[in-house]
Amino acid sequence: MISTTSLFAPVDNDLRLLTENLKKLVGARHELLEAAAEHLFEAGGKRIRPAIVLLVARATMLDRDITLRHRRLAEITEMIHTASLVHDDVIDEAELRRNVPTVNSLFGDRVAVLAGDFLFAQSSWYLANLDNLAVVKLLSEVIRDYAEGEIQQAMNRFNPSLSIEAYLEKTYYKTASLMANSAKAAGLLSEVPEAVAERLYSYGRYIGLAFQIVDDILDFTTETEILGKPAGSDLISGNLTAPALYAMEAKPYLEVLIKREFSQEGDIEQALALIKESNGIERSRELAADYAKLAVQQLDCLKPSEASQALADLADYVLSRLY
Amino acid sequence: MISTTSLFAPVDNDLRLLTENLKKLVGARHELLEAAAEHLFEAGGKRIRPAIVLLVARATMLDRDITLRHRRLAEITEMIHTASLVHDDVIDEAELRRNVPTVNSLFGDRVAVLAGDFLFAQSSWYLANLDNLAVVKLLSEVIRDYAEGEIQQAMNRFNPSLSIEAYLEKTYYKTASLMANSAKAAGLLSEVPEAVAERLYSYGRYIGLAFQIVDDILDFTTETEILGKPAGSDLISGNLTAPALYAMEAKPYLEVLIKREFSQEGDIEQALALIKESNGIERSRELAADYAKLAVQQLDCLKPSEASQALADLADYVLSRLY
Repeated sequence: MISTTSLFAPVDNDLRLLTENLKKLVGARHELLEAAAEHLFEAGGKRIRPAIVLLVARATMLDRDITLRHRRLAEITEMIHTASLVHDDVIDEAELRRNVPTVNSLFGDRVAVLAGDFLFAQSSWYLANLDNLAVVKLLSEVIRDYAEGEIQQAMNRFNPSLSIEAYLEKTYYKTASLMANSAKAAGLLSEVPEAVAERLYSYGRYIGLAFQIVDDILDFTTETEILGKPAGSDLISGNLTAPALYAMEAKPYLEVLIKREFSQEGDIEQALALIKESNGIERSRELAADYAKLAVQQLDCLKPSEASQALADLADYVLSRLY
Repeated sequence: MISTTSLFAPVDNDLRLLTENLKKLVGARHELLEAAAEHLFEAGGKRIRPAIVLLVARATMLDRDITLRHRRLAEITEMIHTASLVHDDVIDEAELRRNVPTVNSLFGDRVAVLAGDFLFAQSSWYLANLDNLAVVKLLSEVIRDYAEGEIQQAMNRFNPSLSIEAYLEKTYYKTASLMANSAKAAGLLSEVPEAVAERLYSYGRYIGLAFQIVDDILDFTTETEILGKPAGSDLISGNLTAPALYAMEAKPYLEVLIKREFSQEGDIEQALALIKESNGIERSRELAADYAKLAVQQLDCLKPSEASQALADLADYVLSRLY
């Protein structure tokens, strides 16, 4: 697996500054949230979302310095992402994330709902104060999409008729919208032409889809200890992702197990075995690879630079997480 | 008690339209939220926040028609308010509100967190699409203030050293900020001069403070059946409001009871009796009346009209809820 440290080298200092700023922002004002903040912004996050914003900023500014607004936009993406994780964990009653206990399991649902609301609210406020209406619209779309995706996911729990298209739509809403709209917004802050902004949007969209499909594969293939949460946890909670959806085509009995919500002893073990025997994981990997390739193709709108190369390498990194 | 029906007569049709729009907005898109939406927007809400926006709109447009943006702003205020109530009830583990079971008690915390996030997200998106950066900033401040107030309240549970000033600050953040900033925003949409916008802000601020203090008094003086939640529920949950804070000055033993979080049998009954014996309720009523009077004074910035009269009458209505 490629390390993100070398990958993000062009924005290494920017990312360090960002982490410090985020911790100060949340922790300094509220004792109650201080522990949660340390926890949230230290817990081994890969900072992929702000890294994309900062790399797009560098790749589109080139000989100019990136602006405070670019940095603020990067912070906003990480705040929205973190807020969504915190509420996600309340909704899923998750106890572990990245091998660390979740905010809800440590501090209770009360603090978790509050901390998520605080981060969403703070990000809305920062956003409004970027003084750029086009950027405000793009990021407000992200917050709306996140809620939409979360609802679609909740509505389709244990629904074996979920199509791969509906899964991809939900994945766009929950994950790729943030990367797509924030990459475009970073371009708008650099005043790139509209056509370039659209390519940056597509880059973010494709890399976001690839990233989430890989994440969904890893949920099946990784050991619990490395994953930081129980393996197969998506399936167990009824969240049907690409590997399970593809596997159902080859193993129809999987549908029976899902429909009865794994209510009989041994159902889960059997379902996990059926998925591993099927070509579901291989087909998901191919889908992710296709999206990663599409992402890289969008980058020909940028002049070659260390930062644009890092954006291309990010696509390899996303896939390398599988090996 | 004055009825809000006659009070809001100048914007009666506007409010009916608003309720229909809000139900459609939430319900039509998502089966999961449909029941919650019916529940949220039908449950006897007084629509005071959108009524203020619509009355300010009419009072500042006079011979012009109010715009779609004014209407949209009114919807946004009700969405933000409703979202905050839904998350509030999760945080407080409340089972009843306005005599109706809460979303969390009916549908679980999962749906309640989702429904609140959806409404906050939808309001951010509507807001961005008002295409008015000044209004976006004012309302993003409201969302941030709500989270801030909620955290301050959570941090000060069972804290008998809470000052009346800190209580008023929290009350501004949680309640009055929405009324203040949305009244000002309605003025900005009508292109009033900056000085008038500031007076409208102050009107909303004062009426919001009066409104919440009255609400906090009613929590002590109203029977459970009429209140729609257990009487004294603020105090029981450690949320110290004006009547309790004033009562502590006259009845120091109250502090002992609060400090031990009513852990001994009969503590709550004793605390409620001490507050009723004290002048805490009377002093709170005077404070609310002072703010209501200050609210009315701000309205001399408006030309007399049916709508500006209704804004003045609203101050009487707020106080009349006590009788």
